[in-house]
Amino acid sequence: MNNKHLVQMTNDLQEARNRASFSPDAMHRFIHGSSDKVEKIDKMRSIIESEPVFSKSQIPFQGRPEQLHHSLLVCKRLIELAEEMNMSDEDFAILTKQAHMLTPLSLHYSAFMAVIKAQGTQEQVDKWYTASKRHAVLGCYAQTELSHGSNVMGLGTLATYDSKTQEFIIHTPDITAAKWWIGGLGVTSTHAVVQAQLIISGKSYGPHLFIVPIRSPIDLKPLKGIQVGDIGPKAYGGFSTMDNGYVIFDHVRIPRNNMLMKFAKVTPEGKYLPPVHDKLSYGSMVKLRVDIVDAAGWNLARAITVAVRYCTVRRQFNSENDNSGLETQVINYSSVQHRLMPLLATAYGVIFTGDTLFKRFDQLLAQLEVNDTTLLPEMHATACALKSWGTRRSTDGIEDARKCMGGHGFSYFSGLSDLFASNVPSNTYEGDNYVLSQQTARFLLKQLSLAASGKSVSSDTASYLYLLKEKDTFKFSNLKQEILEPKVQLKLFGIRTARLVANLARQLQRNVPWSELNMDCWAINLAHAEYLVMNEFVNRLTEAQSSEQQVLLPVIKSLSDMFGLSTILNTSLATFLSTSTINPSDLDELNSVYRKLVAEVSMNAVPLVDSFGFTDKTLDSALGRYDGRAYEALWEAAQRNPLNKGKELAKLQDAVLQIVHRGNNLEYIKTSKL
Amino acid sequence: MNNKHLVQMTNDLQEARNRASFSPDAMHRFIHGSSDKVEKIDKMRSIIESEPVFSKSQIPFQGRPEQLHHSLLVCKRLIELAEEMNMSDEDFAILTKQAHMLTPLSLHYSAFMAVIKAQGTQEQVDKWYTASKRHAVLGCYAQTELSHGSNVMGLGTLATYDSKTQEFIIHTPDITAAKWWIGGLGVTSTHAVVQAQLIISGKSYGPHLFIVPIRSPIDLKPLKGIQVGDIGPKAYGGFSTMDNGYVIFDHVRIPRNNMLMKFAKVTPEGKYLPPVHDKLSYGSMVKLRVDIVDAAGWNLARAITVAVRYCTVRRQFNSENDNSGLETQVINYSSVQHRLMPLLATAYGVIFTGDTLFKRFDQLLAQLEVNDTTLLPEMHATACALKSWGTRRSTDGIEDARKCMGGHGFSYFSGLSDLFASNVPSNTYEGDNYVLSQQTARFLLKQLSLAASGKSVSSDTASYLYLLKEKDTFKFSNLKQEILEPKVQLKLFGIRTARLVANLARQLQRNVPWSELNMDCWAINLAHAEYLVMNEFVNRLTEAQSSEQQVLLPVIKSLSDMFGLSTILNTSLATFLSTSTINPSDLDELNSVYRKLVAEVSMNAVPLVDSFGFTDKTLDSALGRYDGRAYEALWEAAQRNPLNKGKELAKLQDAVLQIVHRGNNLEYIKTSKL
Repeated sequence: MNNKHLVQMTNDLQEARNRASFSPDAMHRFIHGSSDKVEKIDKMRSIIESEPVFSKSQIPFQGRPEQLHHSLLVCKRLIELAEEMNMSDEDFAILTKQAHMLTPLSLHYSAFMAVIKAQGTQEQVDKWYTASKRHAVLGCYAQTELSHGSNVMGLGTLATYDSKTQEFIIHTPDITAAKWWIGGLGVTSTHAVVQAQLIISGKSYGPHLFIVPIRSPIDLKPLKGIQVGDIGPKAYGGFSTMDNGYVIFDHVRIPRNNMLMKFAKVTPEGKYLPPVHDKLSYGSMVKLRVDIVDAAGWNLARAITVAVRYCTVRRQFNSENDNSGLETQVINYSSVQHRLMPLLATAYGVIFTGDTLFKRFDQLLAQLEVNDTTLLPEMHATACALKSWGTRRSTDGIEDARKCMGGHGFSYFSGLSDLFASNVPSNTYEGDNYVLSQQTARFLLKQLSLAASGKSVSSDTASYLYLLKEKDTFKFSNLKQEILEPKVQLKLFGIRTARLVANLARQLQRNVPWSELNMDCWAINLAHAEYLVMNEFVNRLTEAQSSEQQVLLPVIKSLSDMFGLSTILNTSLATFLSTSTINPSDLDELNSVYRKLVAEVSMNAVPLVDSFGFTDKTLDSALGRYDGRAYEALWEAAQRNPLNKGKELAKLQDAVLQIVHRGNNLEYIKTSKL
Repeated sequence: MNNKHLVQMTNDLQEARNRASFSPDAMHRFIHGSSDKVEKIDKMRSIIESEPVFSKSQIPFQGRPEQLHHSLLVCKRLIELAEEMNMSDEDFAILTKQAHMLTPLSLHYSAFMAVIKAQGTQEQVDKWYTASKRHAVLGCYAQTELSHGSNVMGLGTLATYDSKTQEFIIHTPDITAAKWWIGGLGVTSTHAVVQAQLIISGKSYGPHLFIVPIRSPIDLKPLKGIQVGDIGPKAYGGFSTMDNGYVIFDHVRIPRNNMLMKFAKVTPEGKYLPPVHDKLSYGSMVKLRVDIVDAAGWNLARAITVAVRYCTVRRQFNSENDNSGLETQVINYSSVQHRLMPLLATAYGVIFTGDTLFKRFDQLLAQLEVNDTTLLPEMHATACALKSWGTRRSTDGIEDARKCMGGHGFSYFSGLSDLFASNVPSNTYEGDNYVLSQQTARFLLKQLSLAASGKSVSSDTASYLYLLKEKDTFKFSNLKQEILEPKVQLKLFGIRTARLVANLARQLQRNVPWSELNMDCWAINLAHAEYLVMNEFVNRLTEAQSSEQQVLLPVIKSLSDMFGLSTILNTSLATFLSTSTINPSDLDELNSVYRKLVAEVSMNAVPLVDSFGFTDKTLDSALGRYDGRAYEALWEAAQRNPLNKGKELAKLQDAVLQIVHRGNNLEYIKTSKL
């Protein structure tokens, strides 16, 4: 069985690749910054792809317990590989990332060990970090409670110091203070770093961190006074490979030395010594958000890779001016191009910005090491803005990309199901997006008051506030040309954001209470993040100009234009108009430039997604296959469905027959020959 | 274990109910149109709630095979109940709706039987409808193919007439023509109505419908020449209780009488008789879309009920001006109010509009029965617009409501997981939303040309095109008062939509090709649907004025205002500004009116969701409990998790111990007393 269309599918992708105006390999290196990094990733990925335990082919047919079990086998094999190959921590991190699976040990590394390293004394690090690294203890980070997520100050778990025994008594006063959602705690963790209110002699000193043994590392039985378990399944089948858990403490005693004491300390006799600087521990919070921004970019890149490839091979409806007998490639519909190309540019933008953010975080860390917090406020605001904007755009974008693929987008085999399901909670964790947007707005208000009083503002991220001196709607003298100038685009982004910030300040001056202005903060957050990404694109253009990647300049410029114009004319048109940055009378002409740009980027869409460098195994999508054989892949996937044979099928059809053969139906069926 | 907050949760909801400015019972009757309807629904719901088989409490812990099996038991019990109580078709439909589960038989009733009734001859109806009603055959509707969804004309399955044997030969020429996604076909169906290209003597007559036996009703074995199975799991765990299937036909012979021949016919000797009117069969397509609009409204109502209740009992962060020792109710945050109240008004709007649409559909049906298609174009456009707008707003709204609930919104026990997962494909099925929007736009362009040539347009749904005579931005003389006048709101909605339609026409005149204007169609579709809903609200206000429900007038007015203002200032601000309907300089004042309105509707939010009339069992949400005991419900749900005990836990922890006890770790653990 074969037909013209089926043969054409592979050709369609090949033709799109032949058309490329640039080298995807060069772009791939540009994205990752160096050939060395690319080589290292390739090496780790090839290890993952060569081992059957990392295959995801059975996941679609597994229930949650099987998925969780598989995920633990994955953990075990990753550890073995690290040992066999004597990997550095950095290599192990890349290896784990290539396995692309949230596991019960994910937070053991990224939270439990990280927080001990950041906030433990040298002695504590020696003891616990070492035990963790050999996996003799497996830990989690227990902050969130049943009734407390965002408000850490309001946590209910208590750590009361008993100076007689030199112990802390960890206690859950009521069900609302049960630790909840703790990744790894459901069935796995032996230990937890617990956020609890420190109480000494009846006085509360606020939340501090304590290492609390949860289950015996001998047999995993819960220790005395501890009630622990898994909180159950998540929405959309997300986090199925993770055992988020709960725990309740009934007067659990731990030694004084189990409080993490790099900053605040409690002496044996029960004296509280506050930290030198109360914000030194904020670095790790910023880091988690930077990681989230990076993941948001790469996850969107995955989704857009699948969607661009599948929409290139899928054909629907006959074209009026095509005599091939083939229907039109879906990617050629403007409704598909106008939805996918902005997402493609956004994926590039978030990846570039995340990359730069990592570098700036390293600077921050170096400063914090010497008790210097100068960079902290700006990095904090930048991370807040990009985390909340990036996670929203990425998860909405994954779902939009899925919708672009029509019916088959709804198949689990599209590969976008878990991508969305396991990333959509990033809108909520590490700071709810709407809560974080208030932090961004507060930072910008401070910068505004600096600017107003003639002082200088944070140069990189808030200099656009000086643009407030421009009072009018932007006047183009030669629109078609100027709108494609990076500095004009950046200026428009700046003017818009500055006016939104100024408008918030005006309302506060008019005594509108802050609590009523949450949505203004949200709008500012979006605009600020979009400015940061636009700015990143402009910097990348400058960077490419003077590098060996100069040949990539035109295609990066087209992505930069795409991000700029799609934000102005599509995603965020409302605020460009409401701030009178753009004049409605210019929209017709702007849209005509934009339409051409969409078509131009679409011509390069396939090589642009190829440049992300996903292999078929890492993408794990029937629709996103590199060779375009999507329909055959869907067919093969359905054939693997255990529901189609043996006991599974027999049990179901037995239930069907109980319906079909009701009453005297069997007789009726036989006589009426149905 | 108990605390102040826990006790307060039930009080919080009670206080919100005490504050109600209207009677939720009266509103409940207004929503359903009559006390009779309410009584019937209550009766059917109480049956469902009294039978354990309809309980959904085990679903969160079941894999897909178990869910599908449970769903078949549900089907069986529904059929038994209908028989035991000698139910009318209408009552059975209400009973089934109250069970609120997509089952392998859902399309047996709504598609297989419906299409036979609509398109079969009397003889065919007598035979197949009767067998279907007694469930001696279970059917599905097989249209979509692996490579054809939207484009029905392009289907590849063939039905070749063999006049010698007076049979059709149903054949799948290649894998791309495999029927795919067919609901009920995976493991259940004995028969299918198949869309296939009718071929007589080598000539194709386009797609027609054929009843094809698939599995023997005796033992469910696939019949000769048939390869059939389940296509596998869907994205986000959606449709888990449904067996969407595939089938490939290898020269399967069926009698001539198995072609549905109410309209087109094939004579025994092979002569093709075309239908009298080629659009008479379009009615059922419109009906399916009306059903989808109705479901979109009620599903959004479910989500908003859960979110409003949970955000009322959840407290986070201390309030500055509250000495109760309690934190602030999340519902009091403006970011939550500004997200939830528009959704609440939208749910009411879609439900009201869907209800009216049903009535108009009955008129259409009566007309079609006498071969009159006058109403068809307008009803088609209305259904397209509301289906594509309504499904998008509803599914986006469910996910937004989930996000408003913070971390616990991501628990499966939020009750919003399957609601989103099983409704999000409605953006794609029965016409992809973006494809349908082109139909809406074409209808409005026709109306525009009628208006331009001095002829009259469809009065209810396109009369706003006459507003094109107004050339300026709307000038308020007394903004704060005028913006709350329904006729002003409706006028603004009309002007905006008219200008978008005119702008599309202008671009076509300037020879921009239709294919480049998909997104303009989409914008028009959204605007047109929003006009229709606004119009419905205004009609409802008039209706309530002259009815015994007059006491509800103020609260319906506040919902109508909320829909109007949130659409203008929030959801669709971009097009109100881009069409210069609204002046940016009016936004400050408009937003100040809007902020007051949001606060006002928020005061009634709990009684407004109570009015939808969901019980705890129908909502099936730990977070949306009527008594507000959300945290206790989450706790209880986690305790039911089978993963926390017995064999499931032992298997998982065995895998954990293989990690913890690696190498000489066990010795190390014992000696270092971890």
